[in-house]
This record gives sequence, structure tokens and C-alpha cells, in this order.
Amino acid sequence: MKLKRTKRCHELTESLVGHEVIINGWINTRRDLGGIYFLDIRDRYGMIQVKVGTDAPESLRNQVRKITPEDVIAVRGILAFRPKDAINPAMSTGTLEILADEIELLNKAKTPPFEITRRETGSEDLRLKYRYLDLRTQSLQKNLILRHRAAQAAREFLNQEDFLEIETPFLMKSTPEGARDFLVPSRLHVGHFYALPQSPQTYKQLLMVSGFDKYYQIVKCFRDEDLRADRQPEFTQIDLEMSFVDEKDVCDVAERLLSYIMRKVRNVDLSMPIPVLSYHEAMEKYGTDKPDTRFDLQLFSVDMIAEKTSFQIFKSVLSAGGVIRGLVVPGGSTFSRKEIEEYTQIAKKYGLQGLTFVKVEGGSLSGGISKFFTLELMKALIQQSNAKDGDLIFFSADRWETALTALGAVRTQLGKALNLIDKEAYHALWIHEFPLLERNEEENRYEAKHHPFTAPNPEDEGLLETNPEKVRARAYDLVLNGHEIAGGSIRIHHEELQKKMFSILGISSEEARQKFGFLLDAFQYGAPPHGGIAFGFDRLVMILAGADSIREVIAFPKTTTAQSLMDNAPDVVDEKQLKELHLKVEKDEKP
Amino acid sequence: MKLKRTKRCHELTESLVGHEVIINGWINTRRDLGGIYFLDIRDRYGMIQVKVGTDAPESLRNQVRKITPEDVIAVRGILAFRPKDAINPAMSTGTLEILADEIELLNKAKTPPFEITRRETGSEDLRLKYRYLDLRTQSLQKNLILRHRAAQAAREFLNQEDFLEIETPFLMKSTPEGARDFLVPSRLHVGHFYALPQSPQTYKQLLMVSGFDKYYQIVKCFRDEDLRADRQPEFTQIDLEMSFVDEKDVCDVAERLLSYIMRKVRNVDLSMPIPVLSYHEAMEKYGTDKPDTRFDLQLFSVDMIAEKTSFQIFKSVLSAGGVIRGLVVPGGSTFSRKEIEEYTQIAKKYGLQGLTFVKVEGGSLSGGISKFFTLELMKALIQQSNAKDGDLIFFSADRWETALTALGAVRTQLGKALNLIDKEAYHALWIHEFPLLERNEEENRYEAKHHPFTAPNPEDEGLLETNPEKVRARAYDLVLNGHEIAGGSIRIHHEELQKKMFSILGISSEEARQKFGFLLDAFQYGAPPHGGIAFGFDRLVMILAGADSIREVIAFPKTTTAQSLMDNAPDVVDEKQLKELHLKVEKDEKP
Repeated sequence: MKLKRTKRCHELTESLVGHEVIINGWINTRRDLGGIYFLDIRDRYGMIQVKVGTDAPESLRNQVRKITPEDVIAVRGILAFRPKDAINPAMSTGTLEILADEIELLNKAKTPPFEITRRETGSEDLRLKYRYLDLRTQSLQKNLILRHRAAQAAREFLNQEDFLEIETPFLMKSTPEGARDFLVPSRLHVGHFYALPQSPQTYKQLLMVSGFDKYYQIVKCFRDEDLRADRQPEFTQIDLEMSFVDEKDVCDVAERLLSYIMRKVRNVDLSMPIPVLSYHEAMEKYGTDKPDTRFDLQLFSVDMIAEKTSFQIFKSVLSAGGVIRGLVVPGGSTFSRKEIEEYTQIAKKYGLQGLTFVKVEGGSLSGGISKFFTLELMKALIQQSNAKDGDLIFFSADRWETALTALGAVRTQLGKALNLIDKEAYHALWIHEFPLLERNEEENRYEAKHHPFTAPNPEDEGLLETNPEKVRARAYDLVLNGHEIAGGSIRIHHEELQKKMFSILGISSEEARQKFGFLLDAFQYGAPPHGGIAFGFDRLVMILAGADSIREVIAFPKTTTAQSLMDNAPDVVDEKQLKELHLKVEKDEKP
Repeated sequence: MKLKRTKRCHELTESLVGHEVIINGWINTRRDLGGIYFLDIRDRYGMIQVKVGTDAPESLRNQVRKITPEDVIAVRGILAFRPKDAINPAMSTGTLEILADEIELLNKAKTPPFEITRRETGSEDLRLKYRYLDLRTQSLQKNLILRHRAAQAAREFLNQEDFLEIETPFLMKSTPEGARDFLVPSRLHVGHFYALPQSPQTYKQLLMVSGFDKYYQIVKCFRDEDLRADRQPEFTQIDLEMSFVDEKDVCDVAERLLSYIMRKVRNVDLSMPIPVLSYHEAMEKYGTDKPDTRFDLQLFSVDMIAEKTSFQIFKSVLSAGGVIRGLVVPGGSTFSRKEIEEYTQIAKKYGLQGLTFVKVEGGSLSGGISKFFTLELMKALIQQSNAKDGDLIFFSADRWETALTALGAVRTQLGKALNLIDKEAYHALWIHEFPLLERNEEENRYEAKHHPFTAPNPEDEGLLETNPEKVRARAYDLVLNGHEIAGGSIRIHHEELQKKMFSILGISSEEARQKFGFLLDAFQYGAPPHGGIAFGFDRLVMILAGADSIREVIAFPKTTTAQSLMDNAPDVVDEKQLKELHLKVEKDEKP
């Protein structure tokens, strides 16, 4: 490498005109305009046009003729103003060009399998295989730079707030509670395994027991889940924990953190304080615990009216303890049968038997199940729903959770289909008062909705034994534009309560001791009240980047089948490696 | 929790005297001085004395009587000046105390298995089991806070220098080249495995191919090595890579980074620029490629003189192509036979057959092998070595590397034993011009001294086929106080040279394609010249903290047998987990 750069592209400004500069970078494009060659040279920082005129030495012109896109070159030349008619206002160096005196080919490039300047010329799978080329595209460069800035902003804020970044182990004990652990066989201890952390949960709680007071980490976590779109086996969290706090303290830090990041990387002021809904309210209004509040369609209760209709399904659902909910679709009376069927399919995916509807026309109802409504009930419904002529009303009737979730999914789709979403807007929302437990009907036991370390609301502690499902958790989720971007809780810090929680979850005291003995012990030696929260960093960056998949904000993502198409990981390994681990693969055995 | 803190200990200043404050923290000590109770309350930020006088309500006094060290409490009271005779100048709040009005016991603590204020009351194993308590000790609190500050300083510097922090995968392909990989079985792809990264080496090179220009990451790396003192299976690197650079550029950034960190966390100015030695010079002068230059003892060649002595061993070593090196021990003539034997043992550990010596007395030599020196040779030796009366000279005679390494180890021990090391000093040193390859005699093949991606010195490229051992690498190590704290190189960026390198290392072209095909491909699509370096962050922090083990600067370290004594990781796992992975442990099979 003879010609080492003296400037990077963004440093080429008009004040340097007349000076010799050396630029290193990639050939973005090469054009031949009547014997004059123009090269656009790209580096991370920008782009500059290089001109090789007809008066240039033939050796240089010959060299340029052989140059193709993505070659790595060095150019030495004088920075000059472009002729007026050649100015490109779309380029930040659009008034300038380098008159090349010397070019050094640093590395030749084969023709890429897709065009770097037109990413759509490659399928996603092809681009994942050649990820190092896809990463050259403007969108991925921009996304990863934004990710860097978001991470630094998060650290800046948390450092200012006296948080300490403390690294926790990646090789830990397997304590599969929620999702499945990735295991790491130990060679030195045959038959023993480490697990990769699903989160640093127990470690950060121990750091609170140790008195570190405020901890954070931007850290990789691992979950061996089954295939799901837009999940990754490894993902990044902004993880934090604080001592001597309640919900308000943690949420306050978390929302100021979010607001700080958004101001720093997007120059957007998040409206503060962030509104709070209880889990119950969120479900009733939006049919989900992560509502997209950038548009306002709200669900409403039809119970009182439905009871009086002659529609048998409503009656039987209500008498079985279920609920009827409605959702007004503005202008929906023009929906075709096919459109209504599409929404019905969405509702069915969420467990609803079917979606019923009425249309609002001339101050009255028509179509769908309108015939089951008396004139009086029609008026009552129109009044309660605020529906207008030309609207449509969808109904869901089922168990509370199913009726709401299904109609919530319909609402989400309507937001997109009816173009109700302001793409420039950022709407954040807190969800509080989650239930502590969820019933796992299949296994006939309770599961922790958040995780087993979440504290119950002290007002509800009495219900733990009598009516566990009614116990509210001291948990909170932060929702941004319909995505859960953070979740956390105040933790249990007393040994006895933690033991009771394990027992409610069906974990025997032996198992609790075997798996979490160190945490139970730690609680005996002076554990402070503490709580925390974790942000899903990939998802947050995705929203801030305006991307539609987390794969767009991860440098080297895996596919939904957890594979890297670039290097073929996971792959078979040498027999010697398995022997050293005393492991044998049993290919035929059914799990 | 009724009494939430209004202040943290370091916020208690004289300007607050007379105001009510609430403090949350741990009982550091409780004293009873004639019925007046003094509690020292500790939080992360400091300590404050709380007084409960004889005039306090009996209920409060009763409460205090039950309080024991490490209880978590909240105290409400008025901040007051201490009486003059009770001022403690060793405490930053030593002029102040809180006159308690109310105390809330937030959590009771059992008696800890060792005293938090006297760490030495617990063995290291006991303290590792109760790591969360050990982490309460002043030294570990201090060390982890220093580690936090060092990490943030590193980021601050690298961000200013336009580096981008980009996360690379933890679940990657197994390409065991140097050390052994930790494997992670894939559940979705039976018989396939991920590996945990030994370093992000290939990823960061791909990021350069992608045009990110300057990358860094503070990142965990993993090596499944055999037991070695002060190694951890997972460790942290400050990893960086740059495009369009040569050695000078990378070393310049690395030394400014080190200097920035040291100024930020230790307020120490590192003497700059850092001196450079070639590998050969470092070996000749100090018998190691990571010399501690805080003291000056240097090795010297005795070849010319030794040849003329009548000492048969010298002659036979020389005629076999070996070397004779000497080391002057100031004041060493008083060494007892036992002391000399101890140094001999050290030399033997490094492969030397034996350590010979002479003493310098009255301008002449005596003892040891002095009888083999003529008077003339004695004078020559004294002159060449600059030895003085009362000194001792050790000799090593062996193959070049053994003779030097063994005497280097003796030198290191002498530095400690003779108290030659200024503990407050920081001496940094670059080592350049490492050999590219090392001969693995056992396996009769060459190994990369750094790694297979290191570029050879272009001047030596011609020797790659004819005399590979003579080829110098474009590699560099940064040494601080006798520890290698960073190592890096300029990388190969041409496919052909990389293939040749693999072939010299005995990697067949099929194997190279199978393991590194993606990298070889990437080199075909426009790879820029690039290079980088990685700092061993644990070791760097250890040196800056003045600690004597990296376990002292890692929150949750493992033992030398890679176990966590706190949670017993690695551990056995549920049979179900192994079944899902289609794995069977073969306990009896010998690896």
C-alpha cells in the first residue's frame, strides 16, 4: 500500500480545493462520458467523484479502463471544483471532484452476486450468505451506525446516573425456567454442562445483594426457542437493576433513558411522562398488552347490549362467563365479503370461533347479525360505540382473554390496512399491574407471567394461596409503537417469599435448593429491596432505524432456523472434539 | 419499604447539618459505648455514623440492640456535627453523624461466613462460594468500579476516534486453530454444533471488508484450555480493527488508548511514545517477549568469552549451535547455596539443564565455575558485564530460546526477590517483528505464532517457501509491567496469500474451504488492507487495580478448574435437555 489516505471522504470540503489529497475506498460506480472517466469512490464517511480526463497519461487511462465496481483503490490527485453544470446537489461533496494523478489498485473485486447500490437485486438469503457485501449497502451501514450511537447514548445516560457497567458470566448454571437453555458441555467435568444466560437476572440480583446499588450491562442473551419469525437465538439487552427502589424509580430511569436515546439518535422529543395503563385497561381498550397507540381505535364492551339481543351465541358466551367486545371500523361498511373474511381469519388465528359484524347505515344497523338487534338496541349500540354512518362494527364473543386478544389482532391489522398509523410518530406507553401468574392448563400448574423472581403486589399477598390468579405483580412493560421494548419488575428480596413463590410454581424445595440455592442463601445475608428492567436492544434499534426486521440492525444475524448462511454455523465438528467432551450424537433417537 | 433514602452517603455534607435525611444501607459495625449506640451505615458511595443516644425512645433502643452486621436498614434522623473529640479524619463523613429518629429493618442478615470488613477471615474458596458477600468488601467494590471506569474510558476514546462498536455473534462456526473451542449443541440441527468465539477475529476482518473502517468491541471471548493459574474460560477483550492502515497506525491508536485509560482511571501519565523492541532484542535483553522493564537487569552474551574457557559444557553447547548468556545479580555474592539452588530450579522449569555462576570479588571471579576462566577471561567478563565486587553472574547455556527464556525467568524472580521493582511505576513496551511461524516439533509442522491471518513482512515473503522460520510477522504486542496486555497484527487481505499461509500451516485446501471459505470468498470481493489489536481487558484492569489475580477484577470468576463455586456450574442437567439435543454422555470412554 503506497498511497495511504490523507483524507476521508467527509473531510473533503471546498477549503481544500487546490490541495493534493489521497483517498482510499471502494469503486461505487465508474462512468465513461466520451472518453472522460468518472469514478465515484466510497468510504464509510461519504463519497467523492474522481475524474480522469482525456489529457491524462495513457497508462492512467488504461488503468481506469480495467477498474470495476467494488475494487479497492487509492487515488492521489488535486481537489477541484466541478464545472457548474456537473454539480450534484444530492451529494455532500457534489461541488467537488479529484483530478486523479495516480491510482493504486489495492485489491481487485469480482463482480458481486448482487449490486451494492441496488440491494433489491439480491434475495435475503443470498444477501445473508454474502453478508459482508450486504453490510456495504447504505441501509445496513446507516443501521449499524445508528445502533452504535444508540448503545453509546444508553451508556452515556446510565453513567451519568451513577450506574456501573458490570460484566456477568456467559458460562453459568442451567436453570431452565422460562425458555430452553443453550448448553455448553464441560470437557474438564465429564457429563457436566454450562448454560448460556437467558438473561443476567440472578447475577444482577446478586450484585444488588453485594451493594453495587445501580448496575447495567449491554449484553448478549440466549434462548433456544423454536422457530419464530424475527427472533434470534442470541439477542442483546440493555439490562439494569437498582437497589432501594420501587416501581416509580425504575420506570423513571427507564423512560428518561429511552427519551435520551431517542433525542441523541433521532433528534426526537418523546412526550413525557409516558402514559400508564394497567394490564387490564390495555387489554380492554386495545386487546393486547403491547398496543400501538399511534392510532386510536378502541375496543368497547357490548356485554349489556348483547345480553338483550336475540343472538344465541352472545347469550351462551355470556352465560358461560365470557364477554362480548366490539370494534368500530371507520368507513368499514364498504368492506367486501372477502375483506371481512380476511379479518375473520386473523381473529381465528387468535382462537376466536368467528368474527361477527354489523354495518351502520342511516342511523341504523344492517347486514351481518343486525337482525338480532331490536331498533332500541341498534340505537343503544350506535350511541355507545360512537359509530357513524358508513362504519362497520366487529364483535368478538369468547372467554375474556380470547375475545380481547383476537379483536386486538384485528385492530392491529386495521391500523395498517386503513393507513391509520403516523409512521413518523413515536408513541410510548407503560403497562403496569400484570398478573403475577398464568395458568398452564396443559401441565395443570401456574407459571410466572414475568419470571419467578417478580414480587407480588403487597396488597395481594394474602391471595397468593387462596386465589393466585388474582395476584398482581410488581411488573411493568414499556411499549413503543406496538412493540414491547422493555420489561421489568420489583423483585422478591426475602427468602421466605421466594420459597413460597417457587412452591406455587410447582418447584419442590429440593429442586429450588439445587437450582437457586445460592440466591436463597444470598437473601439471608442482607438483600436490599431491589428491582430492574431490561430493554430489547435489537427491537429498540429496529424501531429507531425504521427497519422492519431485527435482522436489519444486527451485523451477522441468523435465519429463523438459527443458521448463519454465511459460514454454515451450526456445523458438524471433528470427531476428536466430541470425544474430548465424552459426547455421542444419537441421530435416530426421537426426542 | 417505608423509609426510602433521600441521600446516599457521599451526599451527606456539612451543608446539610440540621436537615432531616433518610439513609438506606448495610450495618458495617455496631458499637455500644456506655449505653450510646453507634451504627456505621455503608452504601456503595460511602459510610455514615448513626447515633442512638440514651435519651432515645426505648423502642428505638430496643430495635438497635437487635441489629447485627450486614443487616439492611433505613434510618431517618437529623444530620449533625459530631462532638470535636469524636471526629474521625479517616472517614469522608468523619465530622458528621445522624441522630436517629426512626429505623426500619429492611432485611435481616445472618452472621456472614467471613467478616466483610476483614476479608482475610475467609479463604479464597469460601469467598468464591459466597461471592456476593466478597463483592461487598472494599477491595472488590473498588476494583469493579475501576473496571467500569476503564471500560467507559476505552469507549470514550474510541468513539472520539470514529470507531464503531459493532456486536459480533457468540454462536459461530467451530474453527479450532489455536486453542480448543467451547461447543454449543444445536437442537434444531441434530449433530451440528456452534462454537463460542475465541475472539471475533474473522468477524472483525469481514467488517473491514464491509467498509466499516474502524471497529471496536469490548467483548467476552472463550477458550477451553487446560488448567492454568490465573486464566479464565471466559475473558474480556477490547478488540479493534482498522482499514487502510499499517503497523504504525494501529500501534498509535493502541498506545493513545492505553494512555487515555491510565490518565482517566489512575491519573497517571504514561511516558510516550512507548519504546519499541524487536522480538529478537527483547529476548536477548530480557529473555522474554514480555519483559518487565520497571527494573533494568539485562542479559548479555557470553559466547565469545565462553568459547575460550575450559568449561566443557560451554564448548559443547556452542559447537551444537547453542548460546551462552549471562546475567549480573547485584550484590548476589552473598547468595547462599540454597538461594542459588532456588534460582536453578526456576531455570530448570524453563528447560535449562542447570544454572552455573561465578562470584565477583576483588576484581576477580571466585566460586561456581570460576576455575574454568583464565585471569584474562575473568577481566574480560567483568568488563563486558559491568559487574562489581559483591555481584554474582548467572550463566545459561543451551539452545537460543531455552538459554534466554530460562535466564529471563531467573531475571523476573530476581526483580521481585531483590525488590528492584517500583510498584508505583508503569512501564510499557512494544514488541515488534515476531516470527510468523513456530515449529511444532511433536506434530512436525508449522504453527502460526500469532494466528493464521497475520501478514508476513513483505520483505520476507520470498522466504515463505524456502525458510519459513525466518519470516517476520507484521505482528506487535504491547507489554505493561511484564504482562502482555495487547497483541495484534496487520492481516493478510489477499486470497492467494491467505491460501498459501493455510497451506504452510498444513491446512489442506479442502479444509481451508470448509472452515474459512467465507473469508477466502470475502477477500475476492474487495478487501481493504487492514489490521488491528486486542487488549486483554481483565489483565489490564488487574494491573491498574494493583491486584495480583484477574479473579480480583472479575465480578463472578471461575476457579482454575473452570468451576463456579457459588452456583456449582458446570452441573448435571435434566435428561430431557440432553434428549432434546440428541446427546449422550459417555462417561467411561477415554478421550
